[in-house]
Amino acid sequence: MTLPDYLAYQQKRVDTALDRWVPAESQDPSIIHRAMRYSLFAGGKRIRPLLAMAAAEAVADSTEGIENAACALELIHTYSLIHDDLPALDNDDLRRGRPTCHKVFGDAMAILAGDALLTLAFETLAKLPHVDSERRIRLVAELATAAGTVGGMIGGQVNDLEGEGKDPTAPLLESIHRAKTGALLRASVRMGAIYAGAGAGAGGGANDFQLTALTCFGEHIGLAFQIVDDVLDVEQPSEALGKTAGKDAQQKKITFPAVYGLEQSRAMAEEERLAAHVALRPFGSRAERLLQLADLVVQRTA
Amino acid sequence: MTLPDYLAYQQKRVDTALDRWVPAESQDPSIIHRAMRYSLFAGGKRIRPLLAMAAAEAVADSTEGIENAACALELIHTYSLIHDDLPALDNDDLRRGRPTCHKVFGDAMAILAGDALLTLAFETLAKLPHVDSERRIRLVAELATAAGTVGGMIGGQVNDLEGEGKDPTAPLLESIHRAKTGALLRASVRMGAIYAGAGAGAGGGANDFQLTALTCFGEHIGLAFQIVDDVLDVEQPSEALGKTAGKDAQQKKITFPAVYGLEQSRAMAEEERLAAHVALRPFGSRAERLLQLADLVVQRTA
Repeated sequence: MTLPDYLAYQQKRVDTALDRWVPAESQDPSIIHRAMRYSLFAGGKRIRPLLAMAAAEAVADSTEGIENAACALELIHTYSLIHDDLPALDNDDLRRGRPTCHKVFGDAMAILAGDALLTLAFETLAKLPHVDSERRIRLVAELATAAGTVGGMIGGQVNDLEGEGKDPTAPLLESIHRAKTGALLRASVRMGAIYAGAGAGAGGGANDFQLTALTCFGEHIGLAFQIVDDVLDVEQPSEALGKTAGKDAQQKKITFPAVYGLEQSRAMAEEERLAAHVALRPFGSRAERLLQLADLVVQRTA
Repeated sequence: MTLPDYLAYQQKRVDTALDRWVPAESQDPSIIHRAMRYSLFAGGKRIRPLLAMAAAEAVADSTEGIENAACALELIHTYSLIHDDLPALDNDDLRRGRPTCHKVFGDAMAILAGDALLTLAFETLAKLPHVDSERRIRLVAELATAAGTVGGMIGGQVNDLEGEGKDPTAPLLESIHRAKTGALLRASVRMGAIYAGAGAGAGGGANDFQLTALTCFGEHIGLAFQIVDDVLDVEQPSEALGKTAGKDAQQKKITFPAVYGLEQSRAMAEEERLAAHVALRPFGSRAERLLQLADLVVQRTA
């Protein structure tokens, strides 16, 4: 299968599963399900689910049902975007080329829609079909930790907010981004590996050695992802990004370009991409799709 | 043990466990842990954890560790208060006699602190010590469903917001409150029963018959609790409630007094209390504490 075909196929698996897990718009109370679906089906690239699925493929022969676990990552990611865009936080009107959730549904409904997506992520993992409870509970623990305050997504977001206007130093920058975006990307890869082997005839899941290598890979692409995000915020116009460009500088955020400049930032992203490749060497050709995803993350233009 | 001693003892167990599960204020990022603890340790009565613990006692001889599972309920309850009090929602300045979380820490931090408490609730259940993974995953599923949009807390909150200014009808009122407060109170009792028997030497957990009876009890006290809440909002001054009184009428909320009048509302709360007693008849003296809690819920004055 060509890479574009593979990506389309996997995105379709994720979208079909998301559509099953998220209550229909006709389900009472309709308004919140419309708000949740508005943000969830806004043309996101599904990078986190795709990473989870490719990680599972790297360690198990069958990855049946992995798209259900992968949904939880997209639910968490989408909740974080909705809350981040609120006027009290980043105050963004544009996301994925469309008005943000609170611009369409109001602040109250956007807060509740975010809460609901966050809650649904854990409900989804708890109710994964055909997966033993030991695996399900490991997935819940992994996701909750990655999304939390200590080294997790919320912690990174807090440091990011608190850092606005402060001196942009390298250690502060890295501690923000390892947590803010890195933790969930790392968890994506790890959750795929933990899930692997859950299906019938899938063989065993990831062993400790494999899990460590995949974690290392996750660290590298997490950092690469954020560097590229920061660079694109400087380089690209809003129309290309589908969100307001130049916000970082405007809000005096601590970013890679602010600390290292654009050229060095680009070089660092490339270094992280190469390190990600090295981390997966033990997997040989089984990691082909994961590596292609790593390349996409770094080479993307939006 | 006298009832006041029992309540103080159980509240202490919950508070000690909460203090263990919630990161210390010194833990980076300090600001969000301070915000979380500010709202969590504001003198709440811990009704939901106490119900869970008493339900466990009704079905198992040892309830060791139940306070850890009970924490998850208080974490969810506190997150919902913080988000409900935000300017975009109920816009309340006073809670438990103190300025609300967003008044002290700002709207951004209050949103994130709520998100963090919600996330931590599931992390806590996923990491419960000495509890088999089957039980832990049942607890996660139970809590996520009760906190969600379909018949759960967020769904009730949405219907409550959407109902403001609408004709106060009995079916609308009941559908709002069964979900808004009822679902989490019912889940409290059910989670205690599901947990029961997890500890060493505890004997088996609740059987289906017991779980059904406890669910029925939970339904009744959930409704009783909300009726009393609505009545107190009319009858009591802000100083007694520790929150702004008279807000329901001001916001044209659909409440029991608005639909049935004060006198009939009080009579209905008493009916629900009696029905709660009947539901637990099969438990005999084992349900003593649960019944005392039901009485407290109805007879409280704040």
